[in-house]
Amino acid sequence: MTDQVNIIYSQRQLNAGQAAKFLGVLLMLLSAFMLPSVGWSLYYNEKFTIVPLGLSILLTLSAGAILYVFNKKQEQKNISIKEGYLIVSLSWIMISFAGALPFYLSNAIPSFTDAFFESISGFTTTGASILQDIEAVPKSLLFWRSMTHWIGGMGIIVLSVAILPILGIGGMQLFAAEAPGTTPVKLHPHIRSTAKRLWVIYVFLTMVQTLLLMLGGMDLFNSLNHSFSTMATGGFSTQNNSIAGYSPYIQYIVTLFMILAGTSFVLHYFLLKGNFKKLGTNSELKFYLLVLTVFTAVITTGVIITTNLKLEEAFRQSLFQAVSIATTTGFATTDYLEWNGFLWFLIFMLMFTGGCMGSTGGGLKMIRILVLIKNTRLELKRLLHPMAIIPLKLEKRNIPEGIASNFLAFFFLYIIVFFAGAAVMSMFGLDFKSSIGASIASLGNIGPAIGQLGPADNYSFLPAGAKWVLSFLMLLGRLELFTVLLLFSPSFWKK
Amino acid sequence: MTDQVNIIYSQRQLNAGQAAKFLGVLLMLLSAFMLPSVGWSLYYNEKFTIVPLGLSILLTLSAGAILYVFNKKQEQKNISIKEGYLIVSLSWIMISFAGALPFYLSNAIPSFTDAFFESISGFTTTGASILQDIEAVPKSLLFWRSMTHWIGGMGIIVLSVAILPILGIGGMQLFAAEAPGTTPVKLHPHIRSTAKRLWVIYVFLTMVQTLLLMLGGMDLFNSLNHSFSTMATGGFSTQNNSIAGYSPYIQYIVTLFMILAGTSFVLHYFLLKGNFKKLGTNSELKFYLLVLTVFTAVITTGVIITTNLKLEEAFRQSLFQAVSIATTTGFATTDYLEWNGFLWFLIFMLMFTGGCMGSTGGGLKMIRILVLIKNTRLELKRLLHPMAIIPLKLEKRNIPEGIASNFLAFFFLYIIVFFAGAAVMSMFGLDFKSSIGASIASLGNIGPAIGQLGPADNYSFLPAGAKWVLSFLMLLGRLELFTVLLLFSPSFWKK
Repeated sequence: MTDQVNIIYSQRQLNAGQAAKFLGVLLMLLSAFMLPSVGWSLYYNEKFTIVPLGLSILLTLSAGAILYVFNKKQEQKNISIKEGYLIVSLSWIMISFAGALPFYLSNAIPSFTDAFFESISGFTTTGASILQDIEAVPKSLLFWRSMTHWIGGMGIIVLSVAILPILGIGGMQLFAAEAPGTTPVKLHPHIRSTAKRLWVIYVFLTMVQTLLLMLGGMDLFNSLNHSFSTMATGGFSTQNNSIAGYSPYIQYIVTLFMILAGTSFVLHYFLLKGNFKKLGTNSELKFYLLVLTVFTAVITTGVIITTNLKLEEAFRQSLFQAVSIATTTGFATTDYLEWNGFLWFLIFMLMFTGGCMGSTGGGLKMIRILVLIKNTRLELKRLLHPMAIIPLKLEKRNIPEGIASNFLAFFFLYIIVFFAGAAVMSMFGLDFKSSIGASIASLGNIGPAIGQLGPADNYSFLPAGAKWVLSFLMLLGRLELFTVLLLFSPSFWKK
Repeated sequence: MTDQVNIIYSQRQLNAGQAAKFLGVLLMLLSAFMLPSVGWSLYYNEKFTIVPLGLSILLTLSAGAILYVFNKKQEQKNISIKEGYLIVSLSWIMISFAGALPFYLSNAIPSFTDAFFESISGFTTTGASILQDIEAVPKSLLFWRSMTHWIGGMGIIVLSVAILPILGIGGMQLFAAEAPGTTPVKLHPHIRSTAKRLWVIYVFLTMVQTLLLMLGGMDLFNSLNHSFSTMATGGFSTQNNSIAGYSPYIQYIVTLFMILAGTSFVLHYFLLKGNFKKLGTNSELKFYLLVLTVFTAVITTGVIITTNLKLEEAFRQSLFQAVSIATTTGFATTDYLEWNGFLWFLIFMLMFTGGCMGSTGGGLKMIRILVLIKNTRLELKRLLHPMAIIPLKLEKRNIPEGIASNFLAFFFLYIIVFFAGAAVMSMFGLDFKSSIGASIASLGNIGPAIGQLGPADNYSFLPAGAKWVLSFLMLLGRLELFTVLLLFSPSFWKK
């Protein structure tokens, strides 16, 4: 992921060795990320977790080394487009398997299905958990659990800003350097340096949030864990009742950083460089803030009318829950399912929006919804003026025709996969609400859903098969559908 | 609707008088369609319905005559595009108001909201009913109720084959004479003659079904009523338990004619002219039959596994329910909500498909889903071959770019309206399932939904506000969304 690579469109041959070498490097890196957990293990005197953690590191490192050594001769600097897809999908799958090891080997999660579910839920920044008593889990393992979110978030930033746009997935090229027009948002042509710049911002924001949480009285361990979860829009907490037990100050800090994490990291980059104009003219940002404002206002009003809460608390709860779901984080300060049906229906609708493109948020993404709304309004205009040619515009530049068909395909596929996922869940015996909830909460990388899978529940009671299907939905959603589905297309494997 | 008119794109001025004159003619025609009910009133000796029916005829006729006489001077042969939209929407609204009169004036439905709901549910061929005891309603009024379906179906055929394609609504021009390519499906250039040809087929099929039902032992009254309902893909029955009480023969006949009614009437025209080639090459027909076959097969298997029914009965029930929902008819021979959750989830998914374009069926329509699937598959191909130009094809001819964006807008808007409708229903206090069900069953012009609004329930318990919102959803769905929504666009009313 940190290699300076060029993706060659014309080269169609699949070089599996090249992909394997890359995955080897990735696994070796992953094992290094497991080391801090050993530190916490020592600090909290959880000696029984040291052997399982050590073993996980060793296994991951060895697997990575083997993959690397056996494919070392691959000298190619360029990777083909097919290798790009293969590497992206396999990366998430392999780190999810490796990431399950600490949970499984320590017996903190005795079932491998559950351990894998927890791990892929972490790396896809979903935050759906099978843990029934989070606080009973050793702190070193909880730290690894939050770390999976943080690593996943790092991966997603690079993926969405530097890799997927080049591959042309789901209209993301709109966002990328390749987009034609007069105001290219080209960040930097090379993946390596793009990644570095954005990671610096990611690490910086994580540090700031950690400090601000500590200022609110949270200890270092919990502050780090929650900051990892927030910046990745993940949602794993170290507490059974998520953020509900913390002070209003802490809840507002988490809210603020969820909003930041749901914003494009390219915008953070411009912000840090003092380019405020880019922020003011960004349509997606405006739309994102508008959606959050409108939903929060309506929900706050509803909460005030239907409960005894005072204005500040009603506002804080509504804002937190709306932001948490819309950004696909999944933290909770209250159980929205206990609200009036209309209010949690609004939360349910927010499950379909997702964060901004280039953020760590999942879901459909704000810009796709914005472009789809614009296209629909244009269609109305076109009907009244059938002879006129009215182009689709965003920030004063035309959106190429190809992008519209890209968005169409993405939106349609998203809805189809959502329905299919819900149908499979109902086959596993889940009721209607829970089936629908499990599907969208996994596909949208949210975590808490509706029905029996609300913010106060967990996914442990599901049959093993359902957990594997939901894991697949998380992967599909996180990698923008096409990246994964391409691997199932026969023509992908044709020579 | 039977005038030989030309729609002029360039003429933007809205001539309200022209529209009023047309609506006057329509209302006068409508009053004539009320006459047969008087006949049944006499036949069944329901004397108390004669005065209300007579009054309804008089009121409708007078209103029509007034509109016509005051705008008689409008000599224009051509109508502008804006008048086209206005006439289409107002037609359905006005006939729904007039159609409510017999129910309301006879006190068979004492609330005007309910009477209007029943009437618009009829004219939009939805079939959602507020009647708690259908068999207690005078037969003459039940006949009028079925007649509203039949008239609505007639309107829809002309609208979808001859009017909406010219206006360019929702990608329907794909279907129309204007579609470019080597195989134009131009039926006939003039609305008047197109309408006549298709109506002859509609009347013919209604007669054949009536005869076949009578051969199965159903009396003339019930045969006519059910044939009206079937051919319009409406769903109103004269029996409280819909088609469940009738023989397997009758259930199969109704199934067959639901399938026919869900097929494009242009295909029926070609079939009757002996042009079988057109049928064999029609992608939408193949897709429609494929969807029905696959869903019936899966549901039949599921019903056999989860119930004690034997093969024939399981197949007949599964086929009937799948066809009834997919074609948006809404008849029932069993309560699918009593099936296993996965099985009725499949029925719920069929609520989103709809019939073929150019049929009397509502919903998204098979061809839109087919084109969306094709576009998604193409997108996968395009990702692997970014340099290639791969056009979207249907029946070997390219689908123009504009159509894809049309379909995109339609699909997106359909999903948005569905969500908004469900949100409003939950505001009226309906539970999650019923909110979702009411929204899609109204928007898709189906009738029976899920939750508290299944095939064994009715819509009477809803608050009045909810009934008006659902009435609006029925209208939106029936007129392909844009036709109605355009009227809410400020630029529509600009001079």
